[in-house]
Amino acid sequence: MSKQSAPGNGLKIRRLGIDTGHDFVIYMRRDCHVCRSEGFTAHTRIEVDSGDRKITAVLNIVNHGLLLQGEAGLSERAWTKLGVSEGHVVTVRYAKPLDSLSQVRAKIYGKRIDPDGFLDVLGDVVSGRYSDIHLSSFITACAAQALDTNEVSALTAAMIETGDQVSWPNSPIADKHCVGGLPGNRTTPIVVSIAAACGLTIPKTSSRAITSPAGTADTMETLAPVNLSAAAMRRVVEREGGCIVWGGAVDLSPADDILIRVERALDLDSEGQLVASVLSKKIAAGSSHVVIDIPVGETAKIRSAAAAASLARIMTEVAHRFDLKLAVTTSDGSQPVGRGIGPALEARDVLAVLQGKDSAPADLRAHALTLAGSLLELCGTAAEGAGEDMAAQTLASGQAWAKFQAICEAQGGMRVPPVADHRKPVLATRSGRVSALDNRKIARAARLAGAPVSKAAGLEMHIRLGDTVEAGQPLFTLHASASGELNYALDYIGTHQPVIVIEP
Amino acid sequence: MSKQSAPGNGLKIRRLGIDTGHDFVIYMRRDCHVCRSEGFTAHTRIEVDSGDRKITAVLNIVNHGLLLQGEAGLSERAWTKLGVSEGHVVTVRYAKPLDSLSQVRAKIYGKRIDPDGFLDVLGDVVSGRYSDIHLSSFITACAAQALDTNEVSALTAAMIETGDQVSWPNSPIADKHCVGGLPGNRTTPIVVSIAAACGLTIPKTSSRAITSPAGTADTMETLAPVNLSAAAMRRVVEREGGCIVWGGAVDLSPADDILIRVERALDLDSEGQLVASVLSKKIAAGSSHVVIDIPVGETAKIRSAAAAASLARIMTEVAHRFDLKLAVTTSDGSQPVGRGIGPALEARDVLAVLQGKDSAPADLRAHALTLAGSLLELCGTAAEGAGEDMAAQTLASGQAWAKFQAICEAQGGMRVPPVADHRKPVLATRSGRVSALDNRKIARAARLAGAPVSKAAGLEMHIRLGDTVEAGQPLFTLHASASGELNYALDYIGTHQPVIVIEP
Repeated sequence: MSKQSAPGNGLKIRRLGIDTGHDFVIYMRRDCHVCRSEGFTAHTRIEVDSGDRKITAVLNIVNHGLLLQGEAGLSERAWTKLGVSEGHVVTVRYAKPLDSLSQVRAKIYGKRIDPDGFLDVLGDVVSGRYSDIHLSSFITACAAQALDTNEVSALTAAMIETGDQVSWPNSPIADKHCVGGLPGNRTTPIVVSIAAACGLTIPKTSSRAITSPAGTADTMETLAPVNLSAAAMRRVVEREGGCIVWGGAVDLSPADDILIRVERALDLDSEGQLVASVLSKKIAAGSSHVVIDIPVGETAKIRSAAAAASLARIMTEVAHRFDLKLAVTTSDGSQPVGRGIGPALEARDVLAVLQGKDSAPADLRAHALTLAGSLLELCGTAAEGAGEDMAAQTLASGQAWAKFQAICEAQGGMRVPPVADHRKPVLATRSGRVSALDNRKIARAARLAGAPVSKAAGLEMHIRLGDTVEAGQPLFTLHASASGELNYALDYIGTHQPVIVIEP
Repeated sequence: MSKQSAPGNGLKIRRLGIDTGHDFVIYMRRDCHVCRSEGFTAHTRIEVDSGDRKITAVLNIVNHGLLLQGEAGLSERAWTKLGVSEGHVVTVRYAKPLDSLSQVRAKIYGKRIDPDGFLDVLGDVVSGRYSDIHLSSFITACAAQALDTNEVSALTAAMIETGDQVSWPNSPIADKHCVGGLPGNRTTPIVVSIAAACGLTIPKTSSRAITSPAGTADTMETLAPVNLSAAAMRRVVEREGGCIVWGGAVDLSPADDILIRVERALDLDSEGQLVASVLSKKIAAGSSHVVIDIPVGETAKIRSAAAAASLARIMTEVAHRFDLKLAVTTSDGSQPVGRGIGPALEARDVLAVLQGKDSAPADLRAHALTLAGSLLELCGTAAEGAGEDMAAQTLASGQAWAKFQAICEAQGGMRVPPVADHRKPVLATRSGRVSALDNRKIARAARLAGAPVSKAAGLEMHIRLGDTVEAGQPLFTLHASASGELNYALDYIGTHQPVIVIEP
């Protein structure tokens, strides 16, 4: 028997092989002596203590068969997080009252949360003490009672402090980020390759999709491993000057990853959370110079120049408090960038640009060069006004493509993006001119087709704004790994017309 | 095999005997053909269709042993709700996108929700399509962006419409409600007994506790069954003129019961939700004349006369739109009412008042008489100013006690409230005068001691404001059914002083 503070509440732990997703679940028998003496009921939040680690889990009560007397079961994620072996004895008790919830309630009623308050909340979030109900209330309150600059700074600091932090021996440390919302806008692998080829240090960490069909990490994962530890990421950067990895795997701002799951379920992404999410990842990653891309369009995440200006203002103010140099650029968000939407389909566009193919999407290429140029200037590598030319030469010469391949190899080996088994073109029902595209509906269709969970899924655009089409001509092709998902996306498109507006 | 719309997605259903609390969970094998072809992953929300009924359940994936190929398991509540038998074949598919979530998002950003919007949201809530994340966001948004009178009316109407409604052949139909927040304020059984003894029809439905140690339904359940169907409730009222039953059992405003669980987890109770919760239950129950009691005190739910006035105003306005006659009274909320706090302990106070015992708490008796008098006047049974005397006579004559016993018998038989196995007095640490009591901390301690889940648990007050006490004298006694809960309440009291302020 392992060390026990309260042997009366000891239970032998068993792995039941039940995957409950992100939830930590503990299973106990209804007639378990601990359950009865402590007064636990189904859905009680329980602290499980292995002696070395503690987790907070939700109780599910088992009637018969699954467990012996004196045993408790754990769900897969709880098992992994607690890190024990079969038969280890754990102690269980009521989870302590969530005192930090008073911060959330105060916020709901319009009060400000101070830096200690955010630290309390995010500390509880990271330690798994917030249930979905609590997380969702925090996210919703921070959206409904917009965070001011002090609060966004405090939230950013708390996100940094409750996670790992990376520091680098050299300077500048370059980085870029796109505020997202525009399907297919996958410039990062191109910008990182150009910047690193020009001698900059650019340790890029990216997130997975929030509400979009693909995040940079999802796309990059079809080309190379992205779940690198902090140490592995450092080795890649030392060797190649740059990397493109998933931020969550190195535990930078882990609170952000937990909150993002809830934002995704709500399809909600507030300004304050957005700024804190972006900047906390950059600062924790040790970045000093960052280019921010804000696509603006009626159906992009940021819908107006005014909204972009507001976001740029608060982001610049908060960055300044952390001594982070920022260059914010806005771009055309009226239609998807490139052709592919979904991890593997976007990866193919990225490869075409890097390889200098004639078929490469011109808009993706141009947009990547603008951002790379801005970064080269911000970091002082190129003179003002000369950044974009330097970027274009680095791409044309093949140096960027060589650098990208080297980075992929350093991250664990280059991969070939998967191809979907199920495809279906969606045809124009009339002839005319393409006058509008709904980015949100296109993104939704790509998600329903299975992206980003299914890497090969998504859609491939065949037209752009202003194109003339004939009735019966394919507008885009849906890609899916399962027929159920393909039909689901088709149903959605059928019932949510118009996705693409064609005027006679 | 039962009727199937899509036999390819058919799975034999099994009851796994896992109690997941309120969550509907479906269990599938990782290698299940449906899982694979549909692209389901852990935590996917899935529509389960038995042919007769549909539920939305969350997927948990099982690795080995629990299920055979071609089988799926259900949690206890999902099993009950779907109402199928072992081996029945169900079809499964992705739950449809939650379109009503756009209403919640609009609310977060300060827009108003219209009547159709509330109907959409509550329809999805009642059908189980909202996860905890969605429910919590809706509750939080409605608290952060306070509902106006139109919205509260619309929410009330939607709560009524998505549940059952009761109508009565006679008029007036009397009712009373306390806005709560004051431990031990258990006037309802007394008021109903007096009103019914005076010839009024008073079909009282009550809720269970939200954040308090006991709701009227919890307390009443220690004296008689309260989970009555609409038909059973009607028989009780036809026979005795009154009843005291749990509202949820007759499915009046079922959305309210679902939302209350989330409000409880957040310890949140906003004005708009409060008004809709109260009025929807009254209107759905067919009430025409209602007395509302609002206790006001620094540590009560309503903290100031201004807040009480605001609540009274919006409640009266909304009631008017539904043609409901309302009399709102405020009362002293500076300390608990009666001695007992917790279902069984409060029940004993109620019995002492009804039985006319000298030991009965005078404050509980007086408060119940005020409310009963107000109701008798509102309904025209007593002349203005004569209601309280009529109520006092009905109590003194033993008619109210006889009526209460008759109601309990009609509801299924009178019970004796349980007594707790574990008790512990909490002593004064100094001598002096009791100058303040913290209702919230007292309520919290009673909940930690196990109330209302454990009926016998809670605490018994031995002192009142203004009393003189000696060091070492018991201030209150904790009651618990389990030693773990007793210790938990004691810990809380130890670390959250002062609960009761004693001045020298």
